[in-house]
Amino acid sequence: MQSLRAFLIVASLAFGAEALAQTDPLPSWNAGPARDVIVKFVQTTTDPANPTFVPQDERIATFDQDGTLWVEQPIYAQVAYALDRVPAVTAKKPALKDVEPFKTVLSGNHEAITRLSPPDLEKILAAALTGMTVEDFSVAAKTWLATATDPRWHRRFTDLVYQPMLEVLRYLRANGYKTYIVTGGGQDFVRVYADQVYGIPPEQVVGSAGATKYGYDLHSRPVLIKEPKLLLNDNDAGKPEGIHFMIGRRPYIAFGNSSGDRQIAGVHTGWQPRAPGDARAS
Amino acid sequence: MQSLRAFLIVASLAFGAEALAQTDPLPSWNAGPARDVIVKFVQTTTDPANPTFVPQDERIATFDQDGTLWVEQPIYAQVAYALDRVPAVTAKKPALKDVEPFKTVLSGNHEAITRLSPPDLEKILAAALTGMTVEDFSVAAKTWLATATDPRWHRRFTDLVYQPMLEVLRYLRANGYKTYIVTGGGQDFVRVYADQVYGIPPEQVVGSAGATKYGYDLHSRPVLIKEPKLLLNDNDAGKPEGIHFMIGRRPYIAFGNSSGDRQIAGVHTGWQPRAPGDARAS
Repeated sequence: MQSLRAFLIVASLAFGAEALAQTDPLPSWNAGPARDVIVKFVQTTTDPANPTFVPQDERIATFDQDGTLWVEQPIYAQVAYALDRVPAVTAKKPALKDVEPFKTVLSGNHEAITRLSPPDLEKILAAALTGMTVEDFSVAAKTWLATATDPRWHRRFTDLVYQPMLEVLRYLRANGYKTYIVTGGGQDFVRVYADQVYGIPPEQVVGSAGATKYGYDLHSRPVLIKEPKLLLNDNDAGKPEGIHFMIGRRPYIAFGNSSGDRQIAGVHTGWQPRAPGDARAS
Repeated sequence: MQSLRAFLIVASLAFGAEALAQTDPLPSWNAGPARDVIVKFVQTTTDPANPTFVPQDERIATFDQDGTLWVEQPIYAQVAYALDRVPAVTAKKPALKDVEPFKTVLSGNHEAITRLSPPDLEKILAAALTGMTVEDFSVAAKTWLATATDPRWHRRFTDLVYQPMLEVLRYLRANGYKTYIVTGGGQDFVRVYADQVYGIPPEQVVGSAGATKYGYDLHSRPVLIKEPKLLLNDNDAGKPEGIHFMIGRRPYIAFGNSSGDRQIAGVHTGWQPRAPGDARAS
């Protein structure tokens, strides 16, 4: 390690900062076992002479999002979005104004809102995020993300991403890995910003997903309407199930931060020892 | 056209067959409007100066499989596979031997087998293609494909692919298009051979797909078991729904050969005029 560092300094003197950036793929990471295991994973799986070599077209890496790539406290961004949409939802369906949990959300009572149960939140998510075309959903989410801010840091949600993880994404991609998000969050929601924020295109976002229904709009143009019917609950065992469904091969490295990411490490048996993000229970 | 052909001959004389192959991307296609519209589609959507230019990362092309990329008559390959597996299924569950439709399949009476109803075939597909790990499914399907032959041509199913369509796949990929299969056939079945036969990796196969269940085998290793529960029926309206679910963007060109591919053309509004494969009802 010491000699490698010495080499990096020499390289830096010889070739300038750019060369250093090329040789240090994880500049925000502290030296230590977590960083070492990632670098070792990349070096061994991309070295044809190494017994753990992985052919380039099989190099799949998966990343949980909330708490792994961006902040998840004090509230999931998607839940904040759904709560913000409740006034628009009840304006369209005024009968909901006096029905729980919508009544509590409209009250603006923060303490009561934070006490809403998971089934209550599911009702809000279903009402706020379905019943429109997939294009209308995308435009509305994009508009909200452009201005909404996190209640703790008062920054845009898409600014609250972890720099060290952005470096891991880039490092893996530079070494031929296809990077996927595998999140319990809504697939359509994450697809709105994943390309811009993480460099991950829509087809490489696996998330909880509802059904859509093919139909026609008033101008007889075909549309897909988002329905309040869950097809894939991409949490816990749903993560390896979703990976099989959407990707069809096992990832060689999987990053997560909570108990909902435990099973995803179960399907990662292609490489030993496991990378530090694997099934690190919170 | 005449002058282009003359140019090609000159180029061929000057640079040999390789240069001709480079300038004629669709050598098996007859001259005519179908070929012309494909070439025009590629030229215009990849030319930054053209108003219909498509940025490279948005270039998505989808292909139906049965009848579009390989033969579908007299019987779908996957149905032939399921029928061939019935003896193994009933050996494990002998009670099924005297139950329809398994009794008819075991009788070997070809005429009676061809008269089986769609619900009967669904029962056979469910019994034959579920209840095992995804790896065991893959190995069994691969083994069968290596030896089974088509009842009409007596050739391996994977040899009965359409050369002109292989050329279209390669031509689109050479021009930055990501090629997907979008099939009513089983996603896991097609994934077994799509990479080798069509150059399409597992993650670019969208098909009818059943649920899987995460669990553990006798050695406490995590496994995914295929379940007889349909998650995505990738036919008719299920095709655009499946494309949204799995890819998350609209294809710019879609190829199909039957009424089950009609709706897929409905979502293809990104480019005019439409390419010939679009919703060409049988």
